[in-house]
Amino acid sequence: MPLNDSPVLPAELELFQHIESSLYTAVLSDALDELGIRDRAMRERLRPLDPDSVFAGRARTILCMDVHYIAKEPYRKEIEALDSLLPGEVAVVATGNSTRNAPWGELLSTAAVARGARGAVVDGLVRDVKKILALRFPVFAAGVKPVDSRGRGEVVDYNVPVECGGVLVSPGDLIVADFDGVISIPSNAVEEVVRLATVKATRENSSRAELMKGAYLRDVYAKYGVL
Amino acid sequence: MPLNDSPVLPAELELFQHIESSLYTAVLSDALDELGIRDRAMRERLRPLDPDSVFAGRARTILCMDVHYIAKEPYRKEIEALDSLLPGEVAVVATGNSTRNAPWGELLSTAAVARGARGAVVDGLVRDVKKILALRFPVFAAGVKPVDSRGRGEVVDYNVPVECGGVLVSPGDLIVADFDGVISIPSNAVEEVVRLATVKATRENSSRAELMKGAYLRDVYAKYGVL
Amino acid sequence: MPLNDSPVLPAELELFQHIESSLYTAVLSDALDELGIRDRAMRERLRPLDPDSVFAGRARTILCMDVHYIAKEPYRKEIEALDSLLPGEVAVVATGNSTRNAPWGELLSTAAVARGARGAVVDGLVRDVKKILALRFPVFAAGVKPVDSRGRGEVVDYNVPVECGGVLVSPGDLIVADFDGVISIPSNAVEEVVRLATVKATRENSSRAELMKGAYLRDVYAKYGVL
Amino acid sequence: MPLNDSPVLPAELELFQHIESSLYTAVLSDALDELGIRDRAMRERLRPLDPDSVFAGRARTILCMDVHYIAKEPYRKEIEALDSLLPGEVAVVATGNSTRNAPWGELLSTAAVARGARGAVVDGLVRDVKKILALRFPVFAAGVKPVDSRGRGEVVDYNVPVECGGVLVSPGDLIVADFDGVISIPSNAVEEVVRLATVKATRENSSRAELMKGAYLRDVYAKYGVL
Amino acid sequence: MPLNDSPVLPAELELFQHIESSLYTAVLSDALDELGIRDRAMRERLRPLDPDSVFAGRARTILCMDVHYIAKEPYRKEIEALDSLLPGEVAVVATGNSTRNAPWGELLSTAAVARGARGAVVDGLVRDVKKILALRFPVFAAGVKPVDSRGRGEVVDYNVPVECGGVLVSPGDLIVADFDGVISIPSNAVEEVVRLATVKATRENSSRAELMKGAYLRDVYAKYGVL
Amino acid sequence: MPLNDSPVLPAELELFQHIESSLYTAVLSDALDELGIRDRAMRERLRPLDPDSVFAGRARTILCMDVHYIAKEPYRKEIEALDSLLPGEVAVVATGNSTRNAPWGELLSTAAVARGARGAVVDGLVRDVKKILALRFPVFAAGVKPVDSRGRGEVVDYNVPVECGGVLVSPGDLIVADFDGVISIPSNAVEEVVRLATVKATRENSSRAELMKGAYLRDVYAKYGVL
Repeated sequence: MPLNDSPVLPAELELFQHIESSLYTAVLSDALDELGIRDRAMRERLRPLDPDSVFAGRARTILCMDVHYIAKEPYRKEIEALDSLLPGEVAVVATGNSTRNAPWGELLSTAAVARGARGAVVDGLVRDVKKILALRFPVFAAGVKPVDSRGRGEVVDYNVPVECGGVLVSPGDLIVADFDGVISIPSNAVEEVVRLATVKATRENSSRAELMKGAYLRDVYAKYGVL
Repeated sequence: MPLNDSPVLPAELELFQHIESSLYTAVLSDALDELGIRDRAMRERLRPLDPDSVFAGRARTILCMDVHYIAKEPYRKEIEALDSLLPGEVAVVATGNSTRNAPWGELLSTAAVARGARGAVVDGLVRDVKKILALRFPVFAAGVKPVDSRGRGEVVDYNVPVECGGVLVSPGDLIVADFDGVISIPSNAVEEVVRLATVKATRENSSRAELMKGAYLRDVYAKYGVL
Repeated sequence: MPLNDSPVLPAELELFQHIESSLYTAVLSDALDELGIRDRAMRERLRPLDPDSVFAGRARTILCMDVHYIAKEPYRKEIEALDSLLPGEVAVVATGNSTRNAPWGELLSTAAVARGARGAVVDGLVRDVKKILALRFPVFAAGVKPVDSRGRGEVVDYNVPVECGGVLVSPGDLIVADFDGVISIPSNAVEEVVRLATVKATRENSSRAELMKGAYLRDVYAKYGVL
Repeated sequence: MPLNDSPVLPAELELFQHIESSLYTAVLSDALDELGIRDRAMRERLRPLDPDSVFAGRARTILCMDVHYIAKEPYRKEIEALDSLLPGEVAVVATGNSTRNAPWGELLSTAAVARGARGAVVDGLVRDVKKILALRFPVFAAGVKPVDSRGRGEVVDYNVPVECGGVLVSPGDLIVADFDGVISIPSNAVEEVVRLATVKATRENSSRAELMKGAYLRDVYAKYGVL
Repeated sequence: MPLNDSPVLPAELELFQHIESSLYTAVLSDALDELGIRDRAMRERLRPLDPDSVFAGRARTILCMDVHYIAKEPYRKEIEALDSLLPGEVAVVATGNSTRNAPWGELLSTAAVARGARGAVVDGLVRDVKKILALRFPVFAAGVKPVDSRGRGEVVDYNVPVECGGVLVSPGDLIVADFDGVISIPSNAVEEVVRLATVKATRENSSRAELMKGAYLRDVYAKYGVL
Repeated sequence: MPLNDSPVLPAELELFQHIESSLYTAVLSDALDELGIRDRAMRERLRPLDPDSVFAGRARTILCMDVHYIAKEPYRKEIEALDSLLPGEVAVVATGNSTRNAPWGELLSTAAVARGARGAVVDGLVRDVKKILALRFPVFAAGVKPVDSRGRGEVVDYNVPVECGGVLVSPGDLIVADFDGVISIPSNAVEEVVRLATVKATRENSSRAELMKGAYLRDVYAKYGVL
């Protein structure tokens, strides 16, 4: 996983911006399907705090677990993980779908903004939502609860493969998130996925235009082969 | 089920518009209760994509199942079902509460608009939500995920009784949806339900007015007999 | 539980307003943690109907159960409970997380407003949501369904300890609710919790300011000891 | 519901014994299907404590709810309900699928034996299982937990319609239970259901015999019309 | 999927018997792990009706879905699927984890015995359990309910890839089941998996022997490298 | 938590044997209730592999988490935890109710026997069940699956407070398990709990005897005050 120790290059940042402005999770998911890479869309519970959030970036994975006591240094790994974030990265926080703990809040969002992160995806709960919205830092999460993580959950590791929202995410994978949800694209498939998605997006424009004029699906599908 | 092969008559369309403007799911549900027809309100998971969506229309049922391979003609029945939609109808898509598949998206919404459908109810997931909102086609669904149905789910039949959102819906039933949820009224009870709902709505106006003036519930209930 | 039969004093009302304007559930939850009072944050399913709802008030507990028949006087205890609400109170409706019944709607909201209640928390479903929003009465609930309670659920008691949203709530506890969720503070801990929360809120302001300037978490945490 | 106040007549007891020895839940369920009475089989979670338990009897319904405090007379209704059991009856304990409370144990089983009850069905948990097995009193339940009901659950009513194991049971319905599960037959359909079940059981014997000799399903089904 | 149209050869039958007598699901699962083939163990809900059931055989997949009406020929595909079973095969019935329907019972077991099937795996419910036990036909299922499939579920296809118990099973995969559960081995990996499992089973015997003599895990693991 | 580093004394072992032979989880749970220590009974999913298993012993807690990659030394903490077991202890394995991993099997059971452990409680899955039964080592678990823990779960700590089966267990708590389930008694309450349980068990014998002779519950409860 060499990607995660090296800074994001300008070319990569340009790619993230291109994806955010020209593509979207649905067509990228279809491109993954074409390559036989299925089940890379996170479960439907992960929703944006702000309905207009859109981002693409490299996964910096963070692995949490529920705990039921207060360790001596409960925040040690969490601080390390957050301080290691690089510009162009997305914090991918795996909690095992915890509904006990809210490992992400305003201070972590502020820290992530300071490091240049593009967003965060948490398959558990978050708090300080109004303040996160005010920061305009895009966060996708499974729910909201006003509790602190101390004595409820702990970061046990980071920069390791994790399951987030039902998807196996490796450090350096490309995370794309918009109102339709969150997908994770394996780093070695990014180029091909983006190419196929661009083609598909164009074909969809044509079939949509004909349907809007009143065409029947059978005719449109026969002509363009997409649905 | 003769209703579903015949076009909607102007009188029926007028009824739908009357319900949309003058009645609402809560009072229609109470009217169904009065007739002893209970459990016709779909489960709470089915929410509108647009909080202002309101519609009434005849059910055109569509039955899906999850699959784990790509059939030879994965879209055949789906295309048939969508192309059969008549003006005044509502697509009622039963997926068995699937969280694997998103059988409804922008293209199907566009096709439904072209056929004159009044809305769609999906007890599974949908995608292309921002584009559906832009179309102003009202959709109620259980969640959002950016995946295509190919290899994940298939339309196996349509125009058959289905269970959608926990409610048995027959083709031709009257579907009414607003911010409080979705109900299905058996076609042979529509007239009586609308009549009873109109009466109840009036009584509620009186008790609400007295409560607003500070009356106690015990007095208002004694007087109007509604709560 | 003497609190629940005595009127709320002006000093108490002032406290509620102070909490609403100067504190928030997250920092109050941290203060509870400091006192070793954990698990007082309700589960994440309880969400505000209006995202801007904020309230603090004394708990008036109401205990419901699901039923499958229509009793002779289905609303008797419900009317009693609602009519007993005092100014400064919050209706805390415990349904055992029912998804069958919607025990709260417009008429109860209107009645609660008339009694001077500050809000309602329902760990089940509600209906008449648009009308409740129009009333500007703040309600937190687990979902929406257009059904009446008659024959679905019944109020069996009130002013007794209940479990609401996974939290044991006693009559007279202090309920605070905002966009991050709902917490319940034992009546005998209120003073100390408010004091600790005020201190913590101040420290957070400092660490946030440094993080915004680009500081690393390790340095901020070393300096302020909060996260 | 007049049945529940009158003693079981000898003819009825004979019927129960006939069903226990000659029929079984699967064929009775098929007979209910033939009459269009579906969904009278309780959910699969309800299992016998003793795999050889078989019983038929009239339902005496008991309605419980979870509570979180100790009432003044926590056992009052429970004692009444149990003491009202008549010979030939089955205690049908509806808990709303509680996993918090174990409302049935050795003492209630002993009391039920003393009253002449034929069995108990509990859609929640039970305790004292080894002692219940020693009593040879047949109990079907959803699980086992060693807790008392005091402060966890309360009997709120009895002799009212309840939902037990997902099935609406009215007092006096015929409950039949064996290793395949539990069904509830409406009292007014018992005669016809028993008649149809007897016919079906005979036809199944014929098709089974041919299949055992190696026949193909298509031929057996063509001949006997049962599967 | 050529395997599924050809008869099982004597050599293959011998392999099945060898696996049943000398290997077991746990060690075969470890061998799959060594090859990087993970997630081939079905979920824990699938349990044997008879605790002593053990079998190995080729998967004949059968795909069911829940329905809510009675089709014209509800049993057509089911009869076809059952009558197509070959000696050495295992019926793998995928229901989407249905708790509504019991698609397998005594008559299908009898038919499967007549065709020479080695067992059945059903990720839904079954009925006629005592009679199936009497037949000595080994069945693994997720639960028991006394209902017929007519109007509840339908076989929609067979001999297609299915998800059963959370595992993707293709026709011809090797199914092995014992008290620890059910695994599915891809047909092209069978030879290597059996080889690796045989090696691992031997090493486990050595470490077990030392542990029994009182050795510490750290020493045994250092020596044999298995746990 | 000093108890966990000191050997179990003969007096303590005698206590465990006394509890196993003379008391049982139901009456101990009632004694805990009398002291206001509620919610110490583990959830109903934890069942004995062998229906006749009974044990009492000191908790040695082991904390696991699900993982999705293979760490460098996946078994390090697991080996340490198991090798630290002392005679008279019970392994309490907390997995967060995992259904992904089977952290306990034959080899760990063998190791636990060698260390003198009295039993194991696992709130996740186990494997090698038939071999564990042959060892006669009593294990309570939530289910069975034939998978290894490597790459699925990891022991992250031991000798720390954990939540197992929904109960907070501290190292040194007294674990008692029998067919009715598993309870955990705080170490400082053991003496009083055992005393109260002994009294209660005696009173139950009297009321049982009268009920068996045909007495009504109301009379027996009036006389003995237990149910």
